[in-house]
Amino acid sequence: MAQFKRFDLVTKPFEITAEIFSKRRVLITGGLGFIGSNLARKLAASGSKVTVIDSLIPEYGGNLRNLFEAPNGILVNIADVRDRFSMRHLVRGHDVLFNLAGQTSHMDSMRDPFTDLDINVTAQLSILEACREFNPTIDIVFASTRQIYGRPQYLPVDEKHPVNPVDVNGVDKFAGEQFHILYQSVYGLKTRVLRLTNTYGPRMRIKDARQTFLGIWIKQILAGQAFEVWGGEQLRDFNYIDDVIDAMLHVVAEPKTIGQVYNLGSPERINLRDLAQLLVQVVGAGRFKILQFPEERMKIDIGDYYSDSSKIESALGWRPVVPLADGLARTVSFFRDHFDHYS
Amino acid sequence: MAQFKRFDLVTKPFEITAEIFSKRRVLITGGLGFIGSNLARKLAASGSKVTVIDSLIPEYGGNLRNLFEAPNGILVNIADVRDRFSMRHLVRGHDVLFNLAGQTSHMDSMRDPFTDLDINVTAQLSILEACREFNPTIDIVFASTRQIYGRPQYLPVDEKHPVNPVDVNGVDKFAGEQFHILYQSVYGLKTRVLRLTNTYGPRMRIKDARQTFLGIWIKQILAGQAFEVWGGEQLRDFNYIDDVIDAMLHVVAEPKTIGQVYNLGSPERINLRDLAQLLVQVVGAGRFKILQFPEERMKIDIGDYYSDSSKIESALGWRPVVPLADGLARTVSFFRDHFDHYS
Repeated sequence: MAQFKRFDLVTKPFEITAEIFSKRRVLITGGLGFIGSNLARKLAASGSKVTVIDSLIPEYGGNLRNLFEAPNGILVNIADVRDRFSMRHLVRGHDVLFNLAGQTSHMDSMRDPFTDLDINVTAQLSILEACREFNPTIDIVFASTRQIYGRPQYLPVDEKHPVNPVDVNGVDKFAGEQFHILYQSVYGLKTRVLRLTNTYGPRMRIKDARQTFLGIWIKQILAGQAFEVWGGEQLRDFNYIDDVIDAMLHVVAEPKTIGQVYNLGSPERINLRDLAQLLVQVVGAGRFKILQFPEERMKIDIGDYYSDSSKIESALGWRPVVPLADGLARTVSFFRDHFDHYS
Repeated sequence: MAQFKRFDLVTKPFEITAEIFSKRRVLITGGLGFIGSNLARKLAASGSKVTVIDSLIPEYGGNLRNLFEAPNGILVNIADVRDRFSMRHLVRGHDVLFNLAGQTSHMDSMRDPFTDLDINVTAQLSILEACREFNPTIDIVFASTRQIYGRPQYLPVDEKHPVNPVDVNGVDKFAGEQFHILYQSVYGLKTRVLRLTNTYGPRMRIKDARQTFLGIWIKQILAGQAFEVWGGEQLRDFNYIDDVIDAMLHVVAEPKTIGQVYNLGSPERINLRDLAQLLVQVVGAGRFKILQFPEERMKIDIGDYYSDSSKIESALGWRPVVPLADGLARTVSFFRDHFDHYS
């Protein structure tokens, strides 16, 4: 088995002072999901008053278990972001909105393009309209995705890379983020956009590959099953959840990020075959099969991808600090302890 | 008054042989509008069997008068492109779809963003889904707009220019065109996209500025009223309707255009003050006022804009052949004869 050198990331985490978020009233759409729930837990631990909104659509990331033994101060409001009237009420009385709710499955966006459009575009417009009307000073962070870039024309992919989505989800996420930027430039809403690369960690969806292929790998290896690697040579970069949350907190803390779009990413890049081997190594056992890409998946595959995140590093000093091997170890450890609630 | 040199455009029009479109079954969404009706007339005169779809929304470009004394062979079907069920029926049995229906007013897209989204995005997706299911071999031309580029970062603006819409209409039109390109790459639909610059000519909407500011200028000057020029220094390029129709016919005739996006544009560029003077000269009388930009309009103004259309010229030899002074003269002549039906 290949040996994995520990990647040379900075070792001191770039932590935001908790007091900035103490007593802040924070709203998180998709707050029972992977990123939203981890963010809610962190903010509640820092003294924020957190409201999470989630509709618990079974195929998406929301899971009540994600707030199991969470710190006090989290209010759960079950609602769908497509519900325009509820959103008009819910955006009021908050200082910050982390707007994370979204349909994330690329395959589902092709099978049911209208639902992806409703959630990732129409609902975003109604959230922004609600903020404009009822809470125009709220700080907003929108979670977008590298998927908007499509097949890279050059690597690493920076924010100036052309937008060429290869699936409905990419078209829709770009429209959603552009509405956020537009409502800043025209109406002065305090929005900013983060384009996330592959994010992983505790509380991710592992039932299937709807959130990330890494989820189903973890489920299968922990269940003692062989997992499937499609292709294997494609390079990717990964961010551990804590690094992504740090980025979200930092952009809100810095007014100069308003109206800006930032890539997240990692200098640690790995192909899927090596990632599979690393996972086996972290788990201590397991096996996988390398498979040819299925036909329907080929059409929306993007080849190698990794982000250039130097813009946010220059602006805020943010960079990922959790090496992939460590992040995977923490993730595997979490799912070993909570397997039944996630599989 | 300034003198206007006749611009050195090629003088021989680039005409497509009529026989290519003889007996073709053609569907035109927005077919009672400015571009759609002129296209329908031209195709019917070439022997095509044309069906136009239009919902005659009063604020949009559709006008039954646009088919007054039209050649035989045009079937008018009143329907809205948002009507998913009707579209599923209507796309069948046609060889070509010119997909021109759209909300075009930038100000209306800000006042009522959901309607713009429904027409320019959601309806486009349902038209493509209908084609995919019921008529996957239909040739499709989608009319997009220079508005997607926003404020130019360089001039002239080519197809590689970043997409930075400054209004909801621009966000939506980009999503609409990206769906067309995506349905080509994933499902093999025979789509292509034209990004139109300012188009003018007979049958344009002149009641107000919803389609183009030039419309209301023409209405007011022909009514003996002073017209208003906002700013005056902004450079623009203009395409006469016949040139735009030529481009649409040519891209359909050439399979190599499938999956491509092309700017239309003109090497003849003029600022709005000079355009106003040219219009006065063409009409033979009239006056205008130069006004400061209104505040709400400033936020979505884009400064100078003109297109680089060398991509379609290289691919197909298309270029505009009607000089602005001639096109304006033909336009003014048309509206003099039909003023009551358009004002």
